[in-house]
Amino acid sequence: MFAIAKTKATRGIWSAAPQHPGTPARGMVTVDVMAAGICGTDYHIYNWDSWSAGRVPTPMVIGHEFVGHISAIGEGVSGYALGDRVSAECHIACGTCHACRTGNAHICENTSIIGVDRPGAFAEQVEVPAANLWRVPDAIPDVHAAVFDPVGNAMHMVATAKVTAKHVLIVGGGPIGLFAAAIAKAHGARSVTVQEPNSARADIARSLGLDLVVDPRDPANRARILTLTEGRGPEVILEVSGNGAALNAALDIAAPGAVVALLGIPSGPVELDLGAKVVMKGISLLGITGRRMYETWYQVEAFMLKHPDLMDKVITHVLPAIDFHRGFELMDEGSCGKIVLDFRQIEQRLSA
Amino acid sequence: MFAIAKTKATRGIWSAAPQHPGTPARGMVTVDVMAAGICGTDYHIYNWDSWSAGRVPTPMVIGHEFVGHISAIGEGVSGYALGDRVSAECHIACGTCHACRTGNAHICENTSIIGVDRPGAFAEQVEVPAANLWRVPDAIPDVHAAVFDPVGNAMHMVATAKVTAKHVLIVGGGPIGLFAAAIAKAHGARSVTVQEPNSARADIARSLGLDLVVDPRDPANRARILTLTEGRGPEVILEVSGNGAALNAALDIAAPGAVVALLGIPSGPVELDLGAKVVMKGISLLGITGRRMYETWYQVEAFMLKHPDLMDKVITHVLPAIDFHRGFELMDEGSCGKIVLDFRQIEQRLSA
Amino acid sequence: MFAIAKTKATRGIWSAAPQHPGTPARGMVTVDVMAAGICGTDYHIYNWDSWSAGRVPTPMVIGHEFVGHISAIGEGVSGYALGDRVSAECHIACGTCHACRTGNAHICENTSIIGVDRPGAFAEQVEVPAANLWRVPDAIPDVHAAVFDPVGNAMHMVATAKVTAKHVLIVGGGPIGLFAAAIAKAHGARSVTVQEPNSARADIARSLGLDLVVDPRDPANRARILTLTEGRGPEVILEVSGNGAALNAALDIAAPGAVVALLGIPSGPVELDLGAKVVMKGISLLGITGRRMYETWYQVEAFMLKHPDLMDKVITHVLPAIDFHRGFELMDEGSCGKIVLDFRQIEQRLSA
Amino acid sequence: MFAIAKTKATRGIWSAAPQHPGTPARGMVTVDVMAAGICGTDYHIYNWDSWSAGRVPTPMVIGHEFVGHISAIGEGVSGYALGDRVSAECHIACGTCHACRTGNAHICENTSIIGVDRPGAFAEQVEVPAANLWRVPDAIPDVHAAVFDPVGNAMHMVATAKVTAKHVLIVGGGPIGLFAAAIAKAHGARSVTVQEPNSARADIARSLGLDLVVDPRDPANRARILTLTEGRGPEVILEVSGNGAALNAALDIAAPGAVVALLGIPSGPVELDLGAKVVMKGISLLGITGRRMYETWYQVEAFMLKHPDLMDKVITHVLPAIDFHRGFELMDEGSCGKIVLDFRQIEQRLSA
Repeated sequence: MFAIAKTKATRGIWSAAPQHPGTPARGMVTVDVMAAGICGTDYHIYNWDSWSAGRVPTPMVIGHEFVGHISAIGEGVSGYALGDRVSAECHIACGTCHACRTGNAHICENTSIIGVDRPGAFAEQVEVPAANLWRVPDAIPDVHAAVFDPVGNAMHMVATAKVTAKHVLIVGGGPIGLFAAAIAKAHGARSVTVQEPNSARADIARSLGLDLVVDPRDPANRARILTLTEGRGPEVILEVSGNGAALNAALDIAAPGAVVALLGIPSGPVELDLGAKVVMKGISLLGITGRRMYETWYQVEAFMLKHPDLMDKVITHVLPAIDFHRGFELMDEGSCGKIVLDFRQIEQRLSA
Repeated sequence: MFAIAKTKATRGIWSAAPQHPGTPARGMVTVDVMAAGICGTDYHIYNWDSWSAGRVPTPMVIGHEFVGHISAIGEGVSGYALGDRVSAECHIACGTCHACRTGNAHICENTSIIGVDRPGAFAEQVEVPAANLWRVPDAIPDVHAAVFDPVGNAMHMVATAKVTAKHVLIVGGGPIGLFAAAIAKAHGARSVTVQEPNSARADIARSLGLDLVVDPRDPANRARILTLTEGRGPEVILEVSGNGAALNAALDIAAPGAVVALLGIPSGPVELDLGAKVVMKGISLLGITGRRMYETWYQVEAFMLKHPDLMDKVITHVLPAIDFHRGFELMDEGSCGKIVLDFRQIEQRLSA
Repeated sequence: MFAIAKTKATRGIWSAAPQHPGTPARGMVTVDVMAAGICGTDYHIYNWDSWSAGRVPTPMVIGHEFVGHISAIGEGVSGYALGDRVSAECHIACGTCHACRTGNAHICENTSIIGVDRPGAFAEQVEVPAANLWRVPDAIPDVHAAVFDPVGNAMHMVATAKVTAKHVLIVGGGPIGLFAAAIAKAHGARSVTVQEPNSARADIARSLGLDLVVDPRDPANRARILTLTEGRGPEVILEVSGNGAALNAALDIAAPGAVVALLGIPSGPVELDLGAKVVMKGISLLGITGRRMYETWYQVEAFMLKHPDLMDKVITHVLPAIDFHRGFELMDEGSCGKIVLDFRQIEQRLSA
Repeated sequence: MFAIAKTKATRGIWSAAPQHPGTPARGMVTVDVMAAGICGTDYHIYNWDSWSAGRVPTPMVIGHEFVGHISAIGEGVSGYALGDRVSAECHIACGTCHACRTGNAHICENTSIIGVDRPGAFAEQVEVPAANLWRVPDAIPDVHAAVFDPVGNAMHMVATAKVTAKHVLIVGGGPIGLFAAAIAKAHGARSVTVQEPNSARADIARSLGLDLVVDPRDPANRARILTLTEGRGPEVILEVSGNGAALNAALDIAAPGAVVALLGIPSGPVELDLGAKVVMKGISLLGITGRRMYETWYQVEAFMLKHPDLMDKVITHVLPAIDFHRGFELMDEGSCGKIVLDFRQIEQRLSA
């Protein structure tokens, strides 16, 4: 079958033709992929950075955010039928560790990730555990449903930080930051500011009807943010850039008692003035990873049903799956919001 | 009157003879001090470190944790009578900023601190706002009531981190760390470990009946803590040392999803591996300062009433106030838990 | 001055001409009232029900939700200037009880209420404590600012119940229920249903763009609500009707684990099947009164700034203050949302 | 094998000799029961009240709180070995409903209960799902481990109500109320009062070292509780009696803002003065059922490890399993705390 895979341990990504998954194992289902989003994680693997080189075996079909139809069902699976339209949580948790047994499967230390540790969803078919499935309501189109996972990452961050009626600053306007901005607005934030140096992404942020979009390099920002926030600074900071300098600048301007959600992964250690900027101000820094299983998914579904317009603005490109190279080039350029690959005509196209 | 003051802008602390406060201003009361604790903040001022040199004007009567009797009452004060035994919150918050108006007066940015910004409690008398008073139940002796404030700091940390049924690691066994250990035990922690290099303080920790007391320099600690915590590491970390290396070591061993309360003030910026140790593990870092006004005080009162034995173990020295130099020497040596100065016979002694 | 007062201990409400408040007492300010909302409490006093007959002394100027300009300032007040546009919290809490000292002044048992226990705001001028003032941003018009208090009551309920991404059922479509519906929508509820038998109020609910508006007498409702809520029933119920039968019906349909906020005051005891409908389903019933001081006010301000359109839909009538009888008649008829009395031309009108 | 069963649809309980469970089904294990507690639910079934007559098919081996050793392991089970000492959650949740997928399996509407809906643990062997097992630490003796489930019910209530530093009133001193009292003390409650009319149970409560034990029929109670609670009434009420009059009396005396956890199941509807006692006072009523899976179990384990002395005081009788009639008689008399049946010598005894 057609797939997009890391076949060589070097920068790049290539098409591949692995075997179909075959009869699903006990508790598993096969999903015919209709659409799939390109994640920052896929881009890390494409770039073959130190994290991916250290974790991902080759060859590996990548991709883990997707929607499709169930085409085969393993033994012991109930509640799903052939043809059901589903997305799936890409973190396969162990189910038996302390985190899993206390409702925190998103931080299970035995997690296996689809498209990272096992064959991914950038393929005609992917095999996933039935326990990880998410049934998609008809009212959510494939292009939106394909990105339940990254919207879930943003949702987990926004829901944990509690933005309602708060002044919110989002540090980084890539797809996760943009989804977070849209969600913060939809959850009743008092103001939403996105800080993003890339002008194309800043323009997408502007299209969401936010209160302020700033370039971190502009020295006038501090004053503008303080004016917007009635002089007290943002009460919620959502850090998705992984940029240590940006985090420090945000802490500098944060209101006393601010909640700072950390989702971006810095490339190395970050120096923080914990005494003056965290302890004395009563600031909280909350590490955010994955999605709460499955509370976050219910929250994402509610958001997608109510705000298809915002979804459409953050998803800037829907490309035929076979044009995946163009997708990764767009990410190189940074001139995009979320990119979705369309697998619907893949068979027809390939056989044409 | 007799007082202990910073009279010169250099290392040291001296006796002084300032005027009595006189008739209290509107909304204020005068308290005849019976006993007062020496705080780490007093020790910073004694050492005249960069923080105190930059903030504290001289001369300044220091001291801010105390108990005494009301000896004069200003206009507009109701609910208190001459002779009432009281302690007081040393943070005088503005009452009108966003933090104050939302129940977070402990992070008011306009706070004035007794014994730092205005005359303190290491004196025969101190003037304080009636709004900051805390009436002390008869069952709590003066020596305990004198330290409502630092026990409150520890309580704020423990109550925020939520220790019940959790494995707790306390990094630093000074007075705040020791009070925190006692409180964590009293709140039903599953295990309490104190990490402290000073053997005298480690011995005090041992006397509290904790599960483990370790020396951070001992390489066997990691294994011992993992064994105690069923292999998953501490679920709550209370950082009171201000030591960046110790914080990093604690994050290394922290359970996924751990809550890390930060109360110690590092002397400079701290480098943290935010990606692997905070974001990916879903860790929360919570800056803790002051005491919640006045929920923390109710919590402290409950603790003191139930656990006088633990209070007695952490308060290792009660010295006559005129022997205050001995108190600061003990802090130099680190061979003490909490030190309380007894002001009860100060007049008699001085007139003798 | 012109005022609207309960001058006789019988059903009705009348104009009155009390003295101007005069020089404000220490800590107080005088506000020239521009606009004021008619509250359900005012309507209770108008009807002279058993609660009001037992509590309200006559004569009493009523009214407690308002906006105006400061025209005189008492001693000891700082932070406000003549002319400042303000609203005010109508609950004057004691500030010293346990509730007040732990951030819960809204349940202070020593509360005095403006327009109930002391002269109210349906007057040219009202005297209020400076501590209760709320400065109104220019962007919020008088007609909206006049109802900070009831929107705050609704906000307190919605914020406590936590509606984001939840299916919400609002039992009762009077002004508080309608404001709650608007806020629930603005906070990202998954669906909002209002249940209201009065067709005029149901029409207002419909105008808010909610998911469902139902008549409690229609037996098809249960099925419609279950369909809307994916078969599991509402996860949040906001009870503002005070109707015991409606509460029982709502509990019947509530999802397991549902949160039920109770704001409506039943006229007598209510029989509940606590075993099957509350204990076994893990339901929470949360009594809601007043507004959190002043977190709720910040939340209301954020809502009013973002959703003036929704405010305009719930406020159906703005009447000249001298036409107050018409306002109470409208409430008799139930053919209204919120009614605001306009005091701006009161002097001119009276002197005309 | 020997078992204790409801063999006839009438009051009583009898020994029975059902088949051994045989080879466990996929995902299941067989546990050789060592000890098992008699639950209030077992007593309801014994009495054949309307609930049990409507739900429990006969014949049915009853019992659901137990400890034992794994003697057979079904296919697909990992992480457990023959001989492992385990207890088990008796609620078998579906795993796929909204409640189960959001960490609230304790309110799953498809729950099947061991000893109620399927063969129970008052038998030499019981078959349970591996997912429901709880591995018991060596330091917890069988007699304590047998009652993980009811201690968990009490723990769920106490942990939800949040008792630390609060004045706690427990309405009902049966086994759950007594365990709750012990836990509240261990979690640092400011005071713990148990209200119980049965003098034998009141004596057990007294043996726990609580602050107050009262008889609800004594009119002096109200004054004694108000004195103990500094005049404001209990801040946490744990209702385990199911007695509507007692609940109303407790609401009467509750502090404003009190949290009332409801665990007892009233025999019929209860009349509540919701307006004055719940809404106006900002009271929360929280329905509590089952145990949070499995956070509650971790909490119980921590409690049992730290407080074996308190466990020993609440467990007043350990009877040989064959003397089960005596256990139910003791419950008739109410002259007992928790009763545990010892199954360890059951085979030897029967073959003797």
